[in-house]
Amino acid sequence: MYDVLRNSRGIKASIAKICVKDRQKKRRLPAEYFTFDKNDLIDNPDINLIVELIDNAEEAFAIVSAAMKKGKSVVTANKKMVAQHLAELVALQEKYQVSLLYEASCCGSIPIIRTLEEYYDNELLYSVSGIFNGSSNYILSKIFNEGLGYNVALQQAQELGFAETDPTLDVGGFDAKYKVTIIAAHAFGLFLNPDNIFNIGIQNLSEHDIRYAKEKGYKIKLVPHVSKVDEATITLFVMPQFIDRNHHLYNVDNEYNGVIVEAAFSEKQFFSGKGAGGYPTGSAVLSDISALTYAYKYEYKKHLQHIEVRSSDNIEVEVYLRYANKDILQQVPFSSISEKFSGKDFRYVIGFVKLETLLANQDFLRQADAFLVSTGNFKSTAETVAAPVENIETLPEEVIA
Amino acid sequence: MYDVLRNSRGIKASIAKICVKDRQKKRRLPAEYFTFDKNDLIDNPDINLIVELIDNAEEAFAIVSAAMKKGKSVVTANKKMVAQHLAELVALQEKYQVSLLYEASCCGSIPIIRTLEEYYDNELLYSVSGIFNGSSNYILSKIFNEGLGYNVALQQAQELGFAETDPTLDVGGFDAKYKVTIIAAHAFGLFLNPDNIFNIGIQNLSEHDIRYAKEKGYKIKLVPHVSKVDEATITLFVMPQFIDRNHHLYNVDNEYNGVIVEAAFSEKQFFSGKGAGGYPTGSAVLSDISALTYAYKYEYKKHLQHIEVRSSDNIEVEVYLRYANKDILQQVPFSSISEKFSGKDFRYVIGFVKLETLLANQDFLRQADAFLVSTGNFKSTAETVAAPVENIETLPEEVIA
Repeated sequence: MYDVLRNSRGIKASIAKICVKDRQKKRRLPAEYFTFDKNDLIDNPDINLIVELIDNAEEAFAIVSAAMKKGKSVVTANKKMVAQHLAELVALQEKYQVSLLYEASCCGSIPIIRTLEEYYDNELLYSVSGIFNGSSNYILSKIFNEGLGYNVALQQAQELGFAETDPTLDVGGFDAKYKVTIIAAHAFGLFLNPDNIFNIGIQNLSEHDIRYAKEKGYKIKLVPHVSKVDEATITLFVMPQFIDRNHHLYNVDNEYNGVIVEAAFSEKQFFSGKGAGGYPTGSAVLSDISALTYAYKYEYKKHLQHIEVRSSDNIEVEVYLRYANKDILQQVPFSSISEKFSGKDFRYVIGFVKLETLLANQDFLRQADAFLVSTGNFKSTAETVAAPVENIETLPEEVIA
Repeated sequence: MYDVLRNSRGIKASIAKICVKDRQKKRRLPAEYFTFDKNDLIDNPDINLIVELIDNAEEAFAIVSAAMKKGKSVVTANKKMVAQHLAELVALQEKYQVSLLYEASCCGSIPIIRTLEEYYDNELLYSVSGIFNGSSNYILSKIFNEGLGYNVALQQAQELGFAETDPTLDVGGFDAKYKVTIIAAHAFGLFLNPDNIFNIGIQNLSEHDIRYAKEKGYKIKLVPHVSKVDEATITLFVMPQFIDRNHHLYNVDNEYNGVIVEAAFSEKQFFSGKGAGGYPTGSAVLSDISALTYAYKYEYKKHLQHIEVRSSDNIEVEVYLRYANKDILQQVPFSSISEKFSGKDFRYVIGFVKLETLLANQDFLRQADAFLVSTGNFKSTAETVAAPVENIETLPEEVIA
């Protein structure tokens, strides 16, 4: 971050102090830059901007809200904190007339929040989806492109600093879920509780699943998704997804992220860039710092427009479910099954299942010897005739990603 | 455009009048919306915003500058007008305290100008390149993906409304050149005269060139390019380019545009979206109208930072030159040649040639029975040791796109 700021021209900001936790760690900068007490920053009236880059979401929220209450603007990269506290953070911005920017919290160097805020603020958005987590994508790329095993690939990602020691946040799809929660706020104006959103990750990926995908010419990617179901409803989830060769995300590999935005007039847009690593994050933080020098704030226009939109899990998603014990189909009933395979050590079904059912069985599915992959198809449970795509005032009932 | 505006929520704008040229043409809206006299709009004090969407660049400049002098903000999609008059248009904005926005002038629905203005304003940018012209890309896609001949593909593009009756602007690379001129202003702060920038198009593409590219696994795309050569120098050109399967632009087909932005910290970013057609343009215009409702203006920060950057053609580009008459190599001398092929009805060389030489022979090359394709490699003529990529304060001498 220091490198990024030092090498940028024209930015009217200087670093007053850096608050760190670990007193022992060797650091590149002189000791006078550092403090171990956050209040040295929060209580210093000469500091008008706090950049918060710590791991712990609750501690981050304490720092960020304290800083805002002191009239300081804040730049943060903490997606969990932002996703869990968005309504409060927006209220604090309003009350204390400060700005909180968090471009670095979503998709590394891709300017997706700014683009949704500024550029799509009046567009009829259909959906936002993509690859939002660099570590899990790195692991999946090593598996699909180089034939590595899951554990070897995970270890490599950890050695490169792309994945945490406890990788559940990344590979379990939690990190991607926090990001899609934030994106949904800017895209559709809803501040949702991420705990109510379905996410399942790639931890249970087996050789069978990899072989199945490869035979069909697919890669598997971990894909968060938010989209309109009808004029008044959106739906959100995070699941592994089969991605074919013609899909925008097929070649988004390693630590790269990709975002697909579908809208009525601009149609399908695609953005890609580095999603993990210090420099891409630094670049997004820098851009936010720069924006604060001209008093930029998010306007949350879609939220303020009070469009009556609610979030619903009352849709059916088409999934591949690989399982060991067939009792799982009792526990997680499908509404329709189009394919069923049963071999000596490998069974799967493909069919439609309610998102509500998946959400209710989230923990069960995570712990079962089973792997779930979306085909990319879903439909609203209220079966109606698909609206013609030409009619820009209505949305297709069934969206094929 | 009317559709786009009518279907957008939350925008505080209504259409007062539409000025059109053709009195005979049947129109969907009631007659009272229309006028045939531009002064009905320019002189109307109730109108505070003019949206200019006509073809003729000089007439557009007359309208736009007259409107700005009357204190009206303007949204335009006319890339030729903006590229040719940028310095004057910036001065008018300053003098009359109005805003001129032109996101729709570059790359259809991709928000590239806004992103360069807002997001990369403090980044160390290396290069911006891509596919900026939907019509020529449509033609090349039909040729490479479906085996159509050049003339059939051109006719199809015209029938679909992607190409003008006189297609030279598109297929000759002029349209792409105007766009890269505008992008260079926002990316590097230079207001350049497009007449001094080298552009060569795809009109002379022959079966030989297509076969050569296909044998090597390449597609040919028309690629405008602006990049840093060293700290104080940028270079610009528009040429067909060989694109291999792993290149971001390989799958940007038909009327789609793609933009690659390379920078020190965010590294390589890629954006794609529809580049031709009414709705993508309408979407960009709408976004600009919306931005004007909160008094947004471009800040031209890179220009105002007065970084000492100049544009230079003193670089060497590696090209494939297919030709009929070998005298061309006297007229357009190469500094080095790595491959030479001579057959019964087909000859080519591959080597480095000075961009200055190409620019001086621009008309000759357009008229010759010859076709020029960039390999994507170029180097500064001052041969120095390539700087290490890790060193973020310096730039590599040789950039491979």
